[in-house]
Amino acid sequence: MRRDNLTDRTRHFERALENLKNKIQHYLQDTLFVIDKTMNALKTGEENVIREVEDFDDVMDETHRQIENACFDIITRFHPLAEDLRLVVTAMKLSSDLERIGDMCVNIAQSARHISRKLTGFVLEDIFEKMVNTTIGMLQGIVEAYFKMDTEQALEIWKRDDVVDDLYLLGREKLLEMAAKETNITRARILLEETFILRYFERIADHVTNIAEEIYYMKTGKDVKKLLRPSDS
Amino acid sequence: MRRDNLTDRTRHFERALENLKNKIQHYLQDTLFVIDKTMNALKTGEENVIREVEDFDDVMDETHRQIENACFDIITRFHPLAEDLRLVVTAMKLSSDLERIGDMCVNIAQSARHISRKLTGFVLEDIFEKMVNTTIGMLQGIVEAYFKMDTEQALEIWKRDDVVDDLYLLGREKLLEMAAKETNITRARILLEETFILRYFERIADHVTNIAEEIYYMKTGKDVKKLLRPSDS
Repeated sequence: MRRDNLTDRTRHFERALENLKNKIQHYLQDTLFVIDKTMNALKTGEENVIREVEDFDDVMDETHRQIENACFDIITRFHPLAEDLRLVVTAMKLSSDLERIGDMCVNIAQSARHISRKLTGFVLEDIFEKMVNTTIGMLQGIVEAYFKMDTEQALEIWKRDDVVDDLYLLGREKLLEMAAKETNITRARILLEETFILRYFERIADHVTNIAEEIYYMKTGKDVKKLLRPSDS
Repeated sequence: MRRDNLTDRTRHFERALENLKNKIQHYLQDTLFVIDKTMNALKTGEENVIREVEDFDDVMDETHRQIENACFDIITRFHPLAEDLRLVVTAMKLSSDLERIGDMCVNIAQSARHISRKLTGFVLEDIFEKMVNTTIGMLQGIVEAYFKMDTEQALEIWKRDDVVDDLYLLGREKLLEMAAKETNITRARILLEETFILRYFERIADHVTNIAEEIYYMKTGKDVKKLLRPSDS
């Protein structure tokens, strides 16, 4: 009887985890959707697209709270221990990071408002594209790594952040150089606005690396930052 | 007997919470310490002060993990429910935010390296001072609000973020204007570097508002952002 109860409990727990994973999978799709919309807002500068990004943030906030509540519910009902508990808490953190990515997208889309009135298209479109594509790949990979609890994959994605950082520094350097030389103040401001947008994208990738660090720590108890970037280097 | 056990358990739980609160209190002091050091690094540009900020980040990372582990331990040993569970999880989040503030400080101190070689002192020192002092007040208040579970105080601190945002926008505006007019490329770059440093400080305040949002949500189940900044405004 007791064994049956245990099995029942395990089954319910497994099902709750499965539901949580489904929610996270949907949340990833939402995040990819809003990044795509944001790029569209930047390219077209259309007010209605910018608004869509702003409005969608409410949906993302709501989903984040739902995932968080589902995690609380699992902890309360099943009292998971050790790795199971870390799995659930990491889901909460992952969800927080996706929610913040939604916030970044709103900031980026709103920047498009300043720029679009003055300029069509991006000065550094190629760098933006590369940064965004790399970040999207990282996002998809990191959620997969979470599902599989794959520390190797998490580590590989964590390292890919360097690609985004390099693109950011390269882009920033180019834009600042152009801005410093630019004598037309309006055009200089647009170039500087672009550096801020690049910075937001770089932060989006940072959120993905946060998730990677959490997955790595959850499984190994080790800090990936210390492993690969010793403070005395 | 059962009642005694319950009382024992409650007493142990209370003591574990008290220990957690002490750890958080120390972590706040560490955070204030590193912010102070960072300001010092910016003002003096001294390499040894910049290094101290960098090195202290390891201490902050370690404390963050200790607090997180203490939270896991409390959840595992006492199975706290409802508000108690949220209290513990909010401690984890608070700790994450303080840890990220430490990261921001490293970034700021490292910026000082670029600037100090070219310039002594800050172009907009008054705005920096005001931003930092406001943020320090917010930090001290928000940890107090967490300890007292005071939603009113959390709300008041949340609103103070507008002061920091206004200072940031004002400072950024001034710096960008100067940068756009500046014909000396090195000087233009320094002005732009300062906008990035302002931005980091603004993000530090954002981390404090995150904590305020969590405290508010924990007690009321309501999202303070939706309450005060409706999406259609």
